[in-house]
Amino acid sequence: MTDSTDHHHEQVDTTVAERDDWARRRRKGIPTGENLLVIACMDERIPVEKALGLELGDAQIFRNAGGKVTDDVIRSAALTTNFFDTDEIIVINHTDCGMMSAANEDVREGLEAQVGDLDSATLDPSLPELSIGDADLLDWVKMTDDIDEACAAQVEYLRQSEFIPDDVTVSGYVYEVESGHLREPNGRIAEEISERQA
Amino acid sequence: MTDSTDHHHEQVDTTVAERDDWARRRRKGIPTGENLLVIACMDERIPVEKALGLELGDAQIFRNAGGKVTDDVIRSAALTTNFFDTDEIIVINHTDCGMMSAANEDVREGLEAQVGDLDSATLDPSLPELSIGDADLLDWVKMTDDIDEACAAQVEYLRQSEFIPDDVTVSGYVYEVESGHLREPNGRIAEEISERQA
Amino acid sequence: MTDSTDHHHEQVDTTVAERDDWARRRRKGIPTGENLLVIACMDERIPVEKALGLELGDAQIFRNAGGKVTDDVIRSAALTTNFFDTDEIIVINHTDCGMMSAANEDVREGLEAQVGDLDSATLDPSLPELSIGDADLLDWVKMTDDIDEACAAQVEYLRQSEFIPDDVTVSGYVYEVESGHLREPNGRIAEEISERQA
Amino acid sequence: MTDSTDHHHEQVDTTVAERDDWARRRRKGIPTGENLLVIACMDERIPVEKALGLELGDAQIFRNAGGKVTDDVIRSAALTTNFFDTDEIIVINHTDCGMMSAANEDVREGLEAQVGDLDSATLDPSLPELSIGDADLLDWVKMTDDIDEACAAQVEYLRQSEFIPDDVTVSGYVYEVESGHLREPNGRIAEEISERQA
Amino acid sequence: MTDSTDHHHEQVDTTVAERDDWARRRRKGIPTGENLLVIACMDERIPVEKALGLELGDAQIFRNAGGKVTDDVIRSAALTTNFFDTDEIIVINHTDCGMMSAANEDVREGLEAQVGDLDSATLDPSLPELSIGDADLLDWVKMTDDIDEACAAQVEYLRQSEFIPDDVTVSGYVYEVESGHLREPNGRIAEEISERQA
Amino acid sequence: MTDSTDHHHEQVDTTVAERDDWARRRRKGIPTGENLLVIACMDERIPVEKALGLELGDAQIFRNAGGKVTDDVIRSAALTTNFFDTDEIIVINHTDCGMMSAANEDVREGLEAQVGDLDSATLDPSLPELSIGDADLLDWVKMTDDIDEACAAQVEYLRQSEFIPDDVTVSGYVYEVESGHLREPNGRIAEEISERQA
Amino acid sequence: MTDSTDHHHEQVDTTVAERDDWARRRRKGIPTGENLLVIACMDERIPVEKALGLELGDAQIFRNAGGKVTDDVIRSAALTTNFFDTDEIIVINHTDCGMMSAANEDVREGLEAQVGDLDSATLDPSLPELSIGDADLLDWVKMTDDIDEACAAQVEYLRQSEFIPDDVTVSGYVYEVESGHLREPNGRIAEEISERQA
Amino acid sequence: MTDSTDHHHEQVDTTVAERDDWARRRRKGIPTGENLLVIACMDERIPVEKALGLELGDAQIFRNAGGKVTDDVIRSAALTTNFFDTDEIIVINHTDCGMMSAANEDVREGLEAQVGDLDSATLDPSLPELSIGDADLLDWVKMTDDIDEACAAQVEYLRQSEFIPDDVTVSGYVYEVESGHLREPNGRIAEEISERQA
Repeated sequence: MTDSTDHHHEQVDTTVAERDDWARRRRKGIPTGENLLVIACMDERIPVEKALGLELGDAQIFRNAGGKVTDDVIRSAALTTNFFDTDEIIVINHTDCGMMSAANEDVREGLEAQVGDLDSATLDPSLPELSIGDADLLDWVKMTDDIDEACAAQVEYLRQSEFIPDDVTVSGYVYEVESGHLREPNGRIAEEISERQA
Repeated sequence: MTDSTDHHHEQVDTTVAERDDWARRRRKGIPTGENLLVIACMDERIPVEKALGLELGDAQIFRNAGGKVTDDVIRSAALTTNFFDTDEIIVINHTDCGMMSAANEDVREGLEAQVGDLDSATLDPSLPELSIGDADLLDWVKMTDDIDEACAAQVEYLRQSEFIPDDVTVSGYVYEVESGHLREPNGRIAEEISERQA
Repeated sequence: MTDSTDHHHEQVDTTVAERDDWARRRRKGIPTGENLLVIACMDERIPVEKALGLELGDAQIFRNAGGKVTDDVIRSAALTTNFFDTDEIIVINHTDCGMMSAANEDVREGLEAQVGDLDSATLDPSLPELSIGDADLLDWVKMTDDIDEACAAQVEYLRQSEFIPDDVTVSGYVYEVESGHLREPNGRIAEEISERQA
Repeated sequence: MTDSTDHHHEQVDTTVAERDDWARRRRKGIPTGENLLVIACMDERIPVEKALGLELGDAQIFRNAGGKVTDDVIRSAALTTNFFDTDEIIVINHTDCGMMSAANEDVREGLEAQVGDLDSATLDPSLPELSIGDADLLDWVKMTDDIDEACAAQVEYLRQSEFIPDDVTVSGYVYEVESGHLREPNGRIAEEISERQA
Repeated sequence: MTDSTDHHHEQVDTTVAERDDWARRRRKGIPTGENLLVIACMDERIPVEKALGLELGDAQIFRNAGGKVTDDVIRSAALTTNFFDTDEIIVINHTDCGMMSAANEDVREGLEAQVGDLDSATLDPSLPELSIGDADLLDWVKMTDDIDEACAAQVEYLRQSEFIPDDVTVSGYVYEVESGHLREPNGRIAEEISERQA
Repeated sequence: MTDSTDHHHEQVDTTVAERDDWARRRRKGIPTGENLLVIACMDERIPVEKALGLELGDAQIFRNAGGKVTDDVIRSAALTTNFFDTDEIIVINHTDCGMMSAANEDVREGLEAQVGDLDSATLDPSLPELSIGDADLLDWVKMTDDIDEACAAQVEYLRQSEFIPDDVTVSGYVYEVESGHLREPNGRIAEEISERQA
Repeated sequence: MTDSTDHHHEQVDTTVAERDDWARRRRKGIPTGENLLVIACMDERIPVEKALGLELGDAQIFRNAGGKVTDDVIRSAALTTNFFDTDEIIVINHTDCGMMSAANEDVREGLEAQVGDLDSATLDPSLPELSIGDADLLDWVKMTDDIDEACAAQVEYLRQSEFIPDDVTVSGYVYEVESGHLREPNGRIAEEISERQA
Repeated sequence: MTDSTDHHHEQVDTTVAERDDWARRRRKGIPTGENLLVIACMDERIPVEKALGLELGDAQIFRNAGGKVTDDVIRSAALTTNFFDTDEIIVINHTDCGMMSAANEDVREGLEAQVGDLDSATLDPSLPELSIGDADLLDWVKMTDDIDEACAAQVEYLRQSEFIPDDVTVSGYVYEVESGHLREPNGRIAEEISERQA
């Protein structure tokens, strides 16, 4: 029971102010609940917040093909770590990733069939000046050989980048689509526990 | 009641096969439930599947700072439209986006404070050859002036890209963080319905 | 477990007495849980208690076309503030109000089509003496031009009325039907957060 | 499963359009779900929609002290029946109404203590021209003697008013706060079913 | 987590013992949870435990036509108060009782149509010696004139009976089938709160 | 969605009429949902409706010490079968009944300690003429030797009574408090299924 | 709210470690939550964990035809008590066990119809050396005469076995399929509570 | 609503009969719902019914250390397939089984520490004649090298046994404790989907 000497509009004012904070969160420079940015794959099977035990509002979530570090990851991470108090990055790669489903040459052939000459193609239609110089287009496509090695590598790329402050913590996990759980890179146990202990 | 002339292992076999399809979905080239790729902002307040009325497994979800078309968007969209039967792209931008929270020069100053000389900075640590030539680094950062115009522009960039087949459908919506609902670009009604109809 | 030395009829007596208090609340002069009167529009989309975070029994709720201060509001507020300990009034106006949906002349024409000569019409069939003298019937209809200004004005009318004790607190909010939330008058943010910060 | 030949944006477009209709309902002249206006008392114990088996959006709800027909009721009913397709009015009065809790002279004394000379008081601060001529202020206050007779009388006042089209249906019920149910006026059964049938 | 030094069978033993107490409750002389006997009508609309705020196991419940004190009530109450520690009796009568639905002569005619000569009829087929001497059979049928007076009378009959110890508490309530709530005898409020306070 | 050509008050009228039927059920002579009377013991462990798969309103429920046929059972059954269309009676006796917990002489001694001379005691304080002639008071108390035999006997007493029409169906079950289920009299299986089949 | 000075990956690491413990529980030698082995019948009606008030993970559960001590029980119990810290064994036998449903000779005839000469049959296809010497095959089949005696006997066999450490606690219960509850061996009460107490 | 010409006791009789069938299921020779026997490990992490999509009553469940075929499995399977209409057997082995957690010699040493001379130990205290002749005790213990091979082998042992009719269907699955799902033996996919497709 509310104390009858209090007025209800004070409670309403508080609620209205909290909603205003939510709606103008970026404008007011309010960081995420966990000061956290997650980098994950765009695969439709990955429930990112649930896998990490997060609620809506807890973390910013960058997702692209493969959960790979690209210039767009660096751009996005640079903005949130330098302007919005984000101080932790978690990378999530996953088993059965589409980036492991084809050989480089098959990918090259498929893209050429669509684009024609890959060397002259515009990589970013909103920034035509962007180019990869003499690098192979497949280096830009970033296919994966081994998901555990790939996960460890993305963590290293982020730790190296000069756009990201040194005190930002970077970690990486592999999400197993077959079990619905996270593991440490190189922590896969299925093989091991099906055979007699050495 | 199961017909006692059937054997239960047939039901178990079906369940085991369905799980196997889920776990090897990319390897088997199974497309998403909606043949859909969503491009959205990495802002922590955007419940992407819920806003679109989707379930886990229905769509691939690319998210970056601002929900802007970048070379990473083109890379990711090229892979899924050319190799995984995706035939629709939906772009979601949102009000109160962090990309509208600062002037270009403030962003430049902030990044220089972290990086030093922006012209010589490595944009992609896993692909050092990537550069933007004579373009201004702020063109690469892609700040936003008006969210409705920005949304319409991203749709156009995707429609133009030679990496994306012509028969892919592209649409765009603005997610209002103040109401929790989607609207068409330039469909904002809040101003209008607060005053007498002309 | 009830102490076996107590008799159950004592618990039943308490329950019976509480229900009696509820059923004879007005007769016993029991005020509302919040000592609160809400003035709101009769629009079917306004969940008054829910919007204010109230439970049934917490507040008396006056509703009319537009949530405007009329002689009926003064009558009703005078009774509850002078006889039932109500010491707070909250006014809720809302966006997309029907009172903003037509020009004064269209309303006049519509009513004349129904009533005939408006000057000789009976305004209150249970009190035929009630009249508005030389005032225009449209002043009695009380259409709205701007919902934020209208909300602030209703608060002022209530503060001025000699029928309402000076120590009654009066506040006003705008309910946005597009978002389902309250805001302060002139606190609309939708326009602002769709464009780059100045 | 959605047919993969359909595009998801068509479903989203439908949802967006439905919300737009809700938000601009008055502006578009959309009537309530039941074409219904309810007139009820402002007493805090009356769950109007629930008592009538209605959902939010089904009916407009006018509430004042006593659920009495006033000029404000006529104003509000005139607008909705002539401009928004409302074709039914239900009046709900209730037992233990505050309007039955005091004698006329006690009310007169209480108001004089607050206002001073009642004859010169401004009844509507936003329309000072409104007056009740030679009528007694208590006629304007509209206290109640018998809730069943009062309910039947309000129905008659509405049926008589020239502001309300003849084809509008008007009904009345008494809400029993002691039982939480509606009854027909003069349908009270408590006395009857406690004694031997004649 | 159970302390691993404890053995689980100790928990199982406790559960097994509790169930044994429940199953042999009468044999072990365990009283009801409230030491309470309720006397109520057999009418199908009376949720006896719920109306009194009781759980299964809290009270013994005697029910007959009308909730009237008969020799069977005395027999049953004598057994539980003298042998099972019951120290409280609550009588519940209810509005719209079938015992008020017909005049004595109509009941007499109806029974004669079934039985023939009522004076020679066997009242208890398992105890043919039971008779009512010169009393009228209608005195044995125990029809009701006024439910509030009847309730108060049953309380008195129980208080008088020499079979029931003096320290047993006896109370009575009327259950209103129209509202679903209990009231004190002569506490009916429906009439009162529908009219102006004297 | 209600057809807008219907008026809502018709739905309300139907609801009001249904509640009126419930509240005046006895007065209107409406029988129970199952035309059923249950005779059960007053023991606190018997959830009568649940044990029989019934809902509130389905059956009248007579309960006394032991679920024995007494003159009160005959009185109550006579009224409902002759005046309220009841055409079925179910008797429920139960294991661990208090009526099996003591020897006749122990009961006699206990009652004498309370009452004094049992022969001169008033059995029904509201009908002092009621007597059992030369019968032993223990015949009136109706202790039980074997619950299965007792159940079968009560069914027979009811079938014999001249007060109950011949076309009324009478059945009997034993409720096992140890298992919470009904069984046919003499249908106890616990002993049998603990030993090797002959 | 997580303290923003903590990093979220620490919470994720804990979750990953807990799952790893679950998945490698045997490999790491982690005992059950209760250090408990249950021996029960394979009958489909026995909800072993639920009957004992256990959760998944609390106990190892051995089940065979009849819940009898066999060499397989000894093998299994020897492994868990000597290698996995199990220090308690509970045996559950049940009423209506299939092992009581036929006479020894009927079982012998049935098996001979399937196998032919029982004396030369291979009892364990993975260990052909296993034999019962001169014992009767029916001694190996282990039919039951009385479920309470059988339960007590299994407890004794386990207490005697040299494969099981002396400090292991062994208890036994009978599960009644007719009531869904456990009882102590020879604790059946159904017969007793249906008749008058001696 | 029950047809008033039916009597409720018929419904009760049906319910009573169904419960009787459940309680005497073995005595009446009623088979399981699926005519199914499951052979599984006694590990506390295996929710056998849930893993197979079964309800209580659908299947008999044999569980021992390792889910290995022993003479007890043959005994139990022989009884249910020859006497209770069971026509299907499913074997479930699982990853991280305790039977893979130690080398044979470690097991031998551990058992000798408890038992002393293994050759003279009594394997079945209720059937001392049971022996394994010249076989190694470790052959009786049945440790596992590879869970997939072990699962396939158990299926073969059951298919070979002369105690089990030829028309009984036998299948086997591996339950992965790390994912909570079943797979076909040799169907493990974790390794494969972490690396680039050949």
